[in-house]
Amino acid sequence: MPELRKDPIVGRWVIISIERGKRPTDFVSPLKKKKGGFCPFCPGNEYTTPPEIIAFRPEGSAANASDWTLRVMANKFPALQALGDLAKSGEGLFDKMNGLGAHEVIVETPDHNLSLANILQEDVEHVLQAFEMRLDELKKDQRVKYVLVFKNEGEAAGASLEHSHTQLIALPIVPKLVKEELQGARQHYEFKERCIFCDVINQELSDGKRIICENDAFVALAPFAPRAPFETWILPKKHESMFFMQEKNYAQLAEILQKVLRQLDKILDVPPYNFVLHTSPFYDEMNEYYHWHIELMPKLTKYAGFEWGSGFYINPTPPEESARFMREARI
Amino acid sequence: MPELRKDPIVGRWVIISIERGKRPTDFVSPLKKKKGGFCPFCPGNEYTTPPEIIAFRPEGSAANASDWTLRVMANKFPALQALGDLAKSGEGLFDKMNGLGAHEVIVETPDHNLSLANILQEDVEHVLQAFEMRLDELKKDQRVKYVLVFKNEGEAAGASLEHSHTQLIALPIVPKLVKEELQGARQHYEFKERCIFCDVINQELSDGKRIICENDAFVALAPFAPRAPFETWILPKKHESMFFMQEKNYAQLAEILQKVLRQLDKILDVPPYNFVLHTSPFYDEMNEYYHWHIELMPKLTKYAGFEWGSGFYINPTPPEESARFMREARI
Repeated sequence: MPELRKDPIVGRWVIISIERGKRPTDFVSPLKKKKGGFCPFCPGNEYTTPPEIIAFRPEGSAANASDWTLRVMANKFPALQALGDLAKSGEGLFDKMNGLGAHEVIVETPDHNLSLANILQEDVEHVLQAFEMRLDELKKDQRVKYVLVFKNEGEAAGASLEHSHTQLIALPIVPKLVKEELQGARQHYEFKERCIFCDVINQELSDGKRIICENDAFVALAPFAPRAPFETWILPKKHESMFFMQEKNYAQLAEILQKVLRQLDKILDVPPYNFVLHTSPFYDEMNEYYHWHIELMPKLTKYAGFEWGSGFYINPTPPEESARFMREARI
Repeated sequence: MPELRKDPIVGRWVIISIERGKRPTDFVSPLKKKKGGFCPFCPGNEYTTPPEIIAFRPEGSAANASDWTLRVMANKFPALQALGDLAKSGEGLFDKMNGLGAHEVIVETPDHNLSLANILQEDVEHVLQAFEMRLDELKKDQRVKYVLVFKNEGEAAGASLEHSHTQLIALPIVPKLVKEELQGARQHYEFKERCIFCDVINQELSDGKRIICENDAFVALAPFAPRAPFETWILPKKHESMFFMQEKNYAQLAEILQKVLRQLDKILDVPPYNFVLHTSPFYDEMNEYYHWHIELMPKLTKYAGFEWGSGFYINPTPPEESARFMREARI
């Protein structure tokens, strides 16, 4: 019998379609060999990208020189633009505003052939630091209400360049899905005076069957109502609403993120994936009801008419199964 | 300058990324030649599918014989199951229930090589009648709260079989996206005492720039804040909340639906697409605030981390442009 499950935070229902149940080997990973060719993110080609905003490079090295280990710049084809006025306006019933914001790229490594899963842990720590530095800078712009950090890995997951990178988009509006999480978390807090994510973490840790791995500061788990096979959330164990990490646990976050990525690479044969960082909006950085986290989804199934017409998801792999497969992966 | 636009019904924002602006010929349609091979939906292979629920066939012809023109049966690999108890239950914080419902397939034509765009208009009318007959039957089951009719055309749009067909899933819950539309429409009604869809239709008809085509009973338009290039909505001009059409305008709906599909086929070279039918839930069939409609999206762009992490959509084609291209298509 298939099962309907509800996400406790946003109230989204998913169909866990056990009859269609899939093991990791049932998913075919698309061709993942890198094609090569000219790459604007490779060292030596800095002149083909917008100038760098920040970079990790040896002391004394000049901006935009090729001896960097991490580089952040504006997206050459930005979805939003940095300059101008929001100019909110109406058109009869409709509302619009100028597409102001920022769209940046974090190139995670100079090596074209490596991925976030297999660069040095220290380099992953720098990637996380770069997220924090950019969030900290972008929030100074009063027009920016939210910054969404996200990663598309692999062509099937929407990556147009194969050199490993993350992106961020700074928005003049808090995105709908984040608003829904904030609203669900606030409702729970009003009722219980507790953070719903803390409650989920506690229940999952004591139960264990959806836990993938953990260290002192973080836990990786398969959510109760996952939208996709092998969906994975990484959360700080201690309550923290905003990604500006008070304890600067970069090492532990890098460690658990790489572990999860290596488990996925191992059992799903280097799948395409997306991840997003969800954190409190700037107007309410430190609060007791929201809890920042990373949501990661391998791109293994197609979304079709049913999903986008309903907001329901059909998932052939129960999270208890996906968590077990990941726990048992030999990495 | 890119533009941010808000859908007036559900409050979803989209980025109309004019700098990335795309003309129809910029989209590459995937290989759409049919592969052939054994097809369970072709006449003569009725024994390979579950028995038919309804069919359009000559008088005197036996059920499951091969002389049908339209055939409805249960999906052989259903996402939900028809029998049993909902058995709502909790697991600590979490909620779940049995996956009860129905998952059916409407085979639109016996001809493997035709599509909904190019079968006889009379056959499209039968498809629409079949939707209505199934909705009317399924609502008798008290456990069914909503029926979502949807179509996946082309492999890239999630179709696993290439023989032209529509599907429906009967659900024990009103889907999240339909709930959001109902809620937005109800809010507008409370404020204005008018249906928001009627207001949108009136504004669009008097303005004209996003109108694709119309006949006496229906209008096809590009919505103000489309999620995807060439997104098209078809709505009855007169207020009607539920798809059980009082005036039984099958001919006019079939006519406008085929016209839109032919325009898309012409300018986008037979694109993969999805459509969904959104109608009032059974518990509130006839009301003054909601307005049934068809939402159609060609599958031309990929959704990646940004879209699923934010609920924002980036659309490179302004709807005024897509409507104009469609109006000017020579079909």
